[in-house]
Amino acid sequence: MGKTIAEKIFDAHLRDEPFPGTCVLDLDRVLCHEITTPVAIADLEARGKDRVFDNTKIKAVIDHVTPAKDSKTALQGKMLRDWAHRHAIKDFFDVGHNGVCHALFPEKGYIRPGFTVIMGDSHTCTHGAFGAFAAGVGTTDLEVGILKGVCAFRKPNSIRVNLTGTLAPGVYAKDVILFVIGSIGVNGATDRVIEFRGNIVDEMSMEARMTLSNMAIEAGGTSGICLPDMTTVDYLWPFIQSDYASKEAACEDFRRWHSDADATYEKILDFDVSDLEPMVTYGYKPDCVKPVGEMAGGRVDQVYIGTCTNGRIEDLRVAAQVLKGKKIAEHVRGIVSPATPKIFKDALHEGIIDIFMEAGFCVTNPTCGACLGMSNGVLAEGEVCASTSNRNFNGRMGKGGMVHLMSPATAAATAIAGVIADARKI
Amino acid sequence: MGKTIAEKIFDAHLRDEPFPGTCVLDLDRVLCHEITTPVAIADLEARGKDRVFDNTKIKAVIDHVTPAKDSKTALQGKMLRDWAHRHAIKDFFDVGHNGVCHALFPEKGYIRPGFTVIMGDSHTCTHGAFGAFAAGVGTTDLEVGILKGVCAFRKPNSIRVNLTGTLAPGVYAKDVILFVIGSIGVNGATDRVIEFRGNIVDEMSMEARMTLSNMAIEAGGTSGICLPDMTTVDYLWPFIQSDYASKEAACEDFRRWHSDADATYEKILDFDVSDLEPMVTYGYKPDCVKPVGEMAGGRVDQVYIGTCTNGRIEDLRVAAQVLKGKKIAEHVRGIVSPATPKIFKDALHEGIIDIFMEAGFCVTNPTCGACLGMSNGVLAEGEVCASTSNRNFNGRMGKGGMVHLMSPATAAATAIAGVIADARKI
Repeated sequence: MGKTIAEKIFDAHLRDEPFPGTCVLDLDRVLCHEITTPVAIADLEARGKDRVFDNTKIKAVIDHVTPAKDSKTALQGKMLRDWAHRHAIKDFFDVGHNGVCHALFPEKGYIRPGFTVIMGDSHTCTHGAFGAFAAGVGTTDLEVGILKGVCAFRKPNSIRVNLTGTLAPGVYAKDVILFVIGSIGVNGATDRVIEFRGNIVDEMSMEARMTLSNMAIEAGGTSGICLPDMTTVDYLWPFIQSDYASKEAACEDFRRWHSDADATYEKILDFDVSDLEPMVTYGYKPDCVKPVGEMAGGRVDQVYIGTCTNGRIEDLRVAAQVLKGKKIAEHVRGIVSPATPKIFKDALHEGIIDIFMEAGFCVTNPTCGACLGMSNGVLAEGEVCASTSNRNFNGRMGKGGMVHLMSPATAAATAIAGVIADARKI
Repeated sequence: MGKTIAEKIFDAHLRDEPFPGTCVLDLDRVLCHEITTPVAIADLEARGKDRVFDNTKIKAVIDHVTPAKDSKTALQGKMLRDWAHRHAIKDFFDVGHNGVCHALFPEKGYIRPGFTVIMGDSHTCTHGAFGAFAAGVGTTDLEVGILKGVCAFRKPNSIRVNLTGTLAPGVYAKDVILFVIGSIGVNGATDRVIEFRGNIVDEMSMEARMTLSNMAIEAGGTSGICLPDMTTVDYLWPFIQSDYASKEAACEDFRRWHSDADATYEKILDFDVSDLEPMVTYGYKPDCVKPVGEMAGGRVDQVYIGTCTNGRIEDLRVAAQVLKGKKIAEHVRGIVSPATPKIFKDALHEGIIDIFMEAGFCVTNPTCGACLGMSNGVLAEGEVCASTSNRNFNGRMGKGGMVHLMSPATAAATAIAGVIADARKI
């Protein structure tokens, strides 16, 4: 019987199956940031188990609040920093070298097809874009992962989402994933793996695939996986070139992770996205989505471009194209946070930082910041933010604030218009 | 009998002298930021006096914590923003257009020779660099200033500080003012106006004079004034050119504020600074200063370049010159905050942002942030920061943290060496 990519990854990493359906997997990567990891570190210390299973497989970054905004976040950073030094975790990224984890770690080449990846962070599913099984976990799982390099998961049931057709100009991966979530609902893939398939995915860049996989959790998905192909190889080539005779050889090797043609899916969903419009959320759940046309004119106080969903160079390029030579509305606070120092530098050299500043945006250092209301643009009560992030939960970006999720293009157009706007009509 | 510049400004603005020695002055500028002004606004509202004396003379900015780091700072920003809109204060600077008040307001041309300026901020004395009487005030004075456009001060007693000689290469205004404060002590000018004179001041740029005046308060000075000259005219020319037939005419006009040759000073202090070394503070008071040689090798965890003292383009240029082509020490967290969007843009176009990033610095948006431990690089307990700011008070940049004040050059050299270091020896 054929297998899905998730099943193949589970098979290759199975350490134990203590109960039927519960798989203890060996981990290739345990990723850490300064908000959830210090809790695990403190508990491991309290238990006399301040050890790490493999300091080359653990990667750590201070990204949620950086530079530290107060004594509490300074201590969180210090705990992670001291721990990384204590255990000689060399891939630790501090102020000046740090960025949003789900953008930084792929950029460093740490994620490969067939990998198992955990992190104490909801959007760990992002790394599924590389054909990895990547899942966000709680503190206990994180502790076990750090100490033993294993994590228990239920056998994966996959939902195959076939995305076909042709994306219209001005419609992006963010619009696709918002549409999918809107279609299947925030519980549509709970405890399931979403496998993104179809020509739309095949034609997407790695950045766009990361946007897709990033929001799998917003439909409840444990992970959101894309099959690795030549696009994956091209992205990873600087890191894998010594392992393969050619890109073709790498691509061929990656194919072993591909789901079999006769693999079993719990569900197969077909979406022809040819007629898809740019999408915008309303309300407080990511499945509350409407075409931008129905949302146009909605009030905004702040526009936030960045995050692990849409803070990559492609996203900034798209937004800059909309903003170039224009000024954002006077009452709008525009904030752009390139997701990593490399993205910031690339944007700098491409003139994109300049375009944002000339348009009236505030350019911040790389950080998760405002997305989760922890810094860098927290909303006051009653304020409304157009955001390229992934969650519009009630109070997510600040108590009493309202968030509309959208693509970088729509966010840029909205900043200019001062109300929710369609970038194709700006 | 001759008069000092402070006395001349008092004479020209005297509204009333209710008691001998107490002068109620008309105000040319009431400057506002989001930390102290909302307290005044709320009180004025509570008293049914939500009015402003002149919305063209009030300038406001969100600078201390921006973008907002939490609900409290979001509310403070909103209160200032709503108030500015309510009273049609058009010179209000929000996210994307905002920067450190004492760098932004001069840059906008708001400060002129002979002006009276108040703000609910200790370092309002900075604006004395333009030949203005500028003083930080408490909430009550700020409220009265906003409502009535007046503020009461005692008759000014001036201390004249003559700075003469030739500054050695690698020695800057910051070193001079640290030396002066070290010499006269943190109470050396309490309730006095410091008048900075001498060829050293004459030869300084406006940026350097602002560094000098900025720290007058650290010796207790109410204000720190430089006499306006052609350097002042050059800086202000874009804003005053329609008022004068020529720069020479403007310069001549500004001379009316100059202290008379026979003016009375409480004290005249002569400092030949020809042998001055770069200075660094130790301990928790700004008068605890030593030459860098005696401090060299001291441990640092973080290097902070920015603030109203040393976040201007000249400061960034000097630091970049030291940093160019080098990497900062691995354990050092380097943070640079250009003080205003214009400074950020200029630094961007001059390649300075690139140099900082290549060296391993985190480049943040313009904000006061870490200087006062409110965001953007707060220290954890036991951490040490080399900083271009103005206060090394116990816990200033984070509870349990230690701050060493120094010039941008020394800070950059320290970042590279990883310990306190002399830029002339890097």
